[in-house]
Amino acid sequence: MPKLDDVVQEIAHDMRQRHDRGEVATYIPELARVDVNSFGIAVIDADGHVAAAGDSDTPFSVQSITKVFTLTLALGMIGDRLWKRVGREPSGSPFNSIVQLENERGIPRNPFINAGAIAVTDVILSGHEPRVALGEILRFLRFLAEDPSIVIDEAVAASEQRTGFRNRALANYMKSFGVLENPVDYTLGVYFHHCAIAMSCRQLATAGRFLAHLGRNPATGHSVVQPERARRINAIMLTCGHYDGSGEFAYRVGLPGKSGVGGGILAIAPGKASIAVWSPGLDSAGNSHLGRIALEQLTRRMGWSIFG
Amino acid sequence: MPKLDDVVQEIAHDMRQRHDRGEVATYIPELARVDVNSFGIAVIDADGHVAAAGDSDTPFSVQSITKVFTLTLALGMIGDRLWKRVGREPSGSPFNSIVQLENERGIPRNPFINAGAIAVTDVILSGHEPRVALGEILRFLRFLAEDPSIVIDEAVAASEQRTGFRNRALANYMKSFGVLENPVDYTLGVYFHHCAIAMSCRQLATAGRFLAHLGRNPATGHSVVQPERARRINAIMLTCGHYDGSGEFAYRVGLPGKSGVGGGILAIAPGKASIAVWSPGLDSAGNSHLGRIALEQLTRRMGWSIFG
Amino acid sequence: MPKLDDVVQEIAHDMRQRHDRGEVATYIPELARVDVNSFGIAVIDADGHVAAAGDSDTPFSVQSITKVFTLTLALGMIGDRLWKRVGREPSGSPFNSIVQLENERGIPRNPFINAGAIAVTDVILSGHEPRVALGEILRFLRFLAEDPSIVIDEAVAASEQRTGFRNRALANYMKSFGVLENPVDYTLGVYFHHCAIAMSCRQLATAGRFLAHLGRNPATGHSVVQPERARRINAIMLTCGHYDGSGEFAYRVGLPGKSGVGGGILAIAPGKASIAVWSPGLDSAGNSHLGRIALEQLTRRMGWSIFG
Amino acid sequence: MPKLDDVVQEIAHDMRQRHDRGEVATYIPELARVDVNSFGIAVIDADGHVAAAGDSDTPFSVQSITKVFTLTLALGMIGDRLWKRVGREPSGSPFNSIVQLENERGIPRNPFINAGAIAVTDVILSGHEPRVALGEILRFLRFLAEDPSIVIDEAVAASEQRTGFRNRALANYMKSFGVLENPVDYTLGVYFHHCAIAMSCRQLATAGRFLAHLGRNPATGHSVVQPERARRINAIMLTCGHYDGSGEFAYRVGLPGKSGVGGGILAIAPGKASIAVWSPGLDSAGNSHLGRIALEQLTRRMGWSIFG
Repeated sequence: MPKLDDVVQEIAHDMRQRHDRGEVATYIPELARVDVNSFGIAVIDADGHVAAAGDSDTPFSVQSITKVFTLTLALGMIGDRLWKRVGREPSGSPFNSIVQLENERGIPRNPFINAGAIAVTDVILSGHEPRVALGEILRFLRFLAEDPSIVIDEAVAASEQRTGFRNRALANYMKSFGVLENPVDYTLGVYFHHCAIAMSCRQLATAGRFLAHLGRNPATGHSVVQPERARRINAIMLTCGHYDGSGEFAYRVGLPGKSGVGGGILAIAPGKASIAVWSPGLDSAGNSHLGRIALEQLTRRMGWSIFG
Repeated sequence: MPKLDDVVQEIAHDMRQRHDRGEVATYIPELARVDVNSFGIAVIDADGHVAAAGDSDTPFSVQSITKVFTLTLALGMIGDRLWKRVGREPSGSPFNSIVQLENERGIPRNPFINAGAIAVTDVILSGHEPRVALGEILRFLRFLAEDPSIVIDEAVAASEQRTGFRNRALANYMKSFGVLENPVDYTLGVYFHHCAIAMSCRQLATAGRFLAHLGRNPATGHSVVQPERARRINAIMLTCGHYDGSGEFAYRVGLPGKSGVGGGILAIAPGKASIAVWSPGLDSAGNSHLGRIALEQLTRRMGWSIFG
Repeated sequence: MPKLDDVVQEIAHDMRQRHDRGEVATYIPELARVDVNSFGIAVIDADGHVAAAGDSDTPFSVQSITKVFTLTLALGMIGDRLWKRVGREPSGSPFNSIVQLENERGIPRNPFINAGAIAVTDVILSGHEPRVALGEILRFLRFLAEDPSIVIDEAVAASEQRTGFRNRALANYMKSFGVLENPVDYTLGVYFHHCAIAMSCRQLATAGRFLAHLGRNPATGHSVVQPERARRINAIMLTCGHYDGSGEFAYRVGLPGKSGVGGGILAIAPGKASIAVWSPGLDSAGNSHLGRIALEQLTRRMGWSIFG
Repeated sequence: MPKLDDVVQEIAHDMRQRHDRGEVATYIPELARVDVNSFGIAVIDADGHVAAAGDSDTPFSVQSITKVFTLTLALGMIGDRLWKRVGREPSGSPFNSIVQLENERGIPRNPFINAGAIAVTDVILSGHEPRVALGEILRFLRFLAEDPSIVIDEAVAASEQRTGFRNRALANYMKSFGVLENPVDYTLGVYFHHCAIAMSCRQLATAGRFLAHLGRNPATGHSVVQPERARRINAIMLTCGHYDGSGEFAYRVGLPGKSGVGGGILAIAPGKASIAVWSPGLDSAGNSHLGRIALEQLTRRMGWSIFG
């Protein structure tokens, strides 16, 4: 077995030099101006040892990766009743498709496409003021990441609010079927803000540890969720975590993972490690191009694939 | 850790007594007349120990489960060029949907929906006579199952030929896009016949061992595929193995698996075991109802989930 | 040739007595409480003679029928450039489908489905204040109907605003593709209000006269549009005027027409008459059930079908 | 009113000189080798006067135009029961789309898309030998065209048989829903052959006369269908006769019409004339490019639009 630190350094070195970096998201200026050459990686093993390289302490916009944590939070609030409002099947469609909603009476296919994450946000909101719900999400992430300095990038949130017409369409569409319970603007406000949370690879990998270790953070001993629930969240990450590139990620990387349009990916090697990578260039399915390649190398060299 | 034999016996006992058995497939008489009360299970662990219970030696129509083996065979023949003719993303659609083909120029989403398996069969056929290709598939299965007595149920094959209009539509549709290279009737002939192969749980679990052990049958030492390929086939089974119920299977069972409309499921616990269950009653997604529940119990009690 | 007045009286008499009246729209209380037994008809022939019967002077919510007049207005403002923002093909979908928009990059199929009418409203708005655009639409309708008393039913408009999530989804969706130029709330505000205009059959039939007579109101001599444009608006009414029941209306009635969910239908017998009927019970495609039957009788008895 | 003969000559002259001629269909060699510069037109007015120009006596492959006549024949055989097996709404899809069939349980949207015409052919076949049904169709066309010399182009029929995978997919798909009653190969054999009938503009215009004159050929006095049925066939031609370009044809030409991929269009000016044009270059919707333009000029100059 190669040494994790060496592998991580070598991967970071290799990624720094590659020219095929994908395309940085351009739909809001805050994301468009991120340096495409950024690359960070942080891996926390079962003993709490952190192997990190590159821009592993630079905060970036986690975007859809928060969907993992809002799902965890909503399951904690209403348990399996959540599955009446969102499915758990891969969608076979891009992240922002509305076609599926029309065919299935407004019930999003899974909590990791935009529509599904909006429905999950609506559950967390559940009649509270948006800032209360947002506070709860932020507190949860700071707790998991063991870092009270995590904040929302307000400029990103404002840009998303201003330009998020497609998400607004999804939310109103679900509202028309009664799938959302709160005022659309409230739910979307919370959604746009939690997508705008900025975290570093180190923070993100720390926050994901409970998923690698049967629902419990082995450092603090805090149980976040029951083991069964941790497994199930991992299962949804594997089948649905990369939009219409989920099959590809499972095939190449072989780990549960969740990507964000900011170029981050959180991946879980059950029993072994929690991993975060960041490279802002995206592939055609909207997932970090080098992030996926780095994870593919890491899993192969460490023998961490869950598939054998 | 509970003893495997005890767990398997208890699961079989429990399954025998349940009344919610799903509905037996009725589209051909040969499947319709199978006894809904049948239940079999066979688990072969890394040491080659077999834990079996119920109708574990009764042959049943494996149907779509052969798709795992034809995929393996086709990858052995043309390697990754296969992926030009079939994708590897979950479909988000029923097993026999044709909509996806229209939207993606005749390229099936993955090798485990009908259209994809027909395309894979076309690769295996590759200019040969249908009976030659069929002979090869049968030989491969007998070799993997270590049992030369495995045969095709000709009555099932004839019924499928006679009534398989939807598969005929899929095949002609792909042919119109140039995705199939052989005469449609040849490809379909082989397809209908390999779906009609009859195997017992014991035979099926034996045939799947290479997927649980890095591509190699630990009993015989025969390497069937490279470790990387075994992992990747497992990944596709996990994301696509149960049609539009693949997410559900991953969520509840947490193992790569492939179901057939005959009520069988092959599941792989990497490094641990190859598992076959059979219960002919199906759920609404066309997967064995009790088969899935039995696997859910087995994984939970043995701690075999790949997700933690 | 039977006498028009007799035919109209007999039809109204027949319609009064029928029990198959369809279902009144219930999505807002203002429409739900309309008496399902209402029936009105008004026919204005080329000489300006009005044959009317039943509740022909009772104002009802014209809803989608205003789409004919907003289309006329928008064509007057920007001419054929309008067709860059909306198509003119039948949709093969329900009135509020969003699937088509996803497949065709946010361009609605025609100006008579909701999405198309919202795009047309956006053209009329063109940077003005909503109340200015709304004033223009109202002025145009009063001018065409030769009746300054026509008003917006503010209770209906307020209800639509409050519950119109699906239209809000459509508008935001188009906005995400850049098809709408004004703030979504402005465009929707105008849209919801012009759908809430209340008119009687007599007013509506008067307003439609220019379409029956080559673009000119024969009574006043006012030219509203060029003859070519009148023909073309009629063509769109025929192919698209009844949502996914357009083929049925053409088949049975044989006249260009436009229905509204309030139960009204405006129909045009070119060269012969402008016709308005009202019966609030709808069929499964959302068109007035008795309204269509009344028009079928009228066309057959008067020999007015455009198809021979 | 301009003189019809002059108008027809001028249009033919104009069309001869145009360079934008569209693209000749290339999916079978027999169509691909037709001269793109061909242009023919024949107009038969109510008195039986024929105005013809260009290649008006050259037989071409009528292709989908026979769908008008097979619909007429099938309605004659089973009347309105036909509408249980095929709809009469515009499809909003290309001529050979299969998506719609999946969404509507195998019932084609209308008799003028391929799936619908195959279902209509199945009705005509109704248990007979294919050659009997084909003989009937051919006899009907010879009778309507008053010309016993009309034949099937066997080379075209053979090519269609050999390459018609998409139609074979549609037919098998409908068969899987029980919409077709005869063996798929029989129905398709008749379908491919009647599409391969060759006719000239003059023959085609003659054959269509009954649709222009309330179901009766004014020359022979033969009643082909009741007036009501002639109107209704015209209505379906208007809403569905040009696939996904039907709205465009209604908008520009303003007459019921049916196009074929061979470049022909049959158009009906009710009460006035039956018209056939032929120009083999197609537009992007698969309809004759110059054929449509020629009809647009003819209708405008003769004032024949049904819309005013």
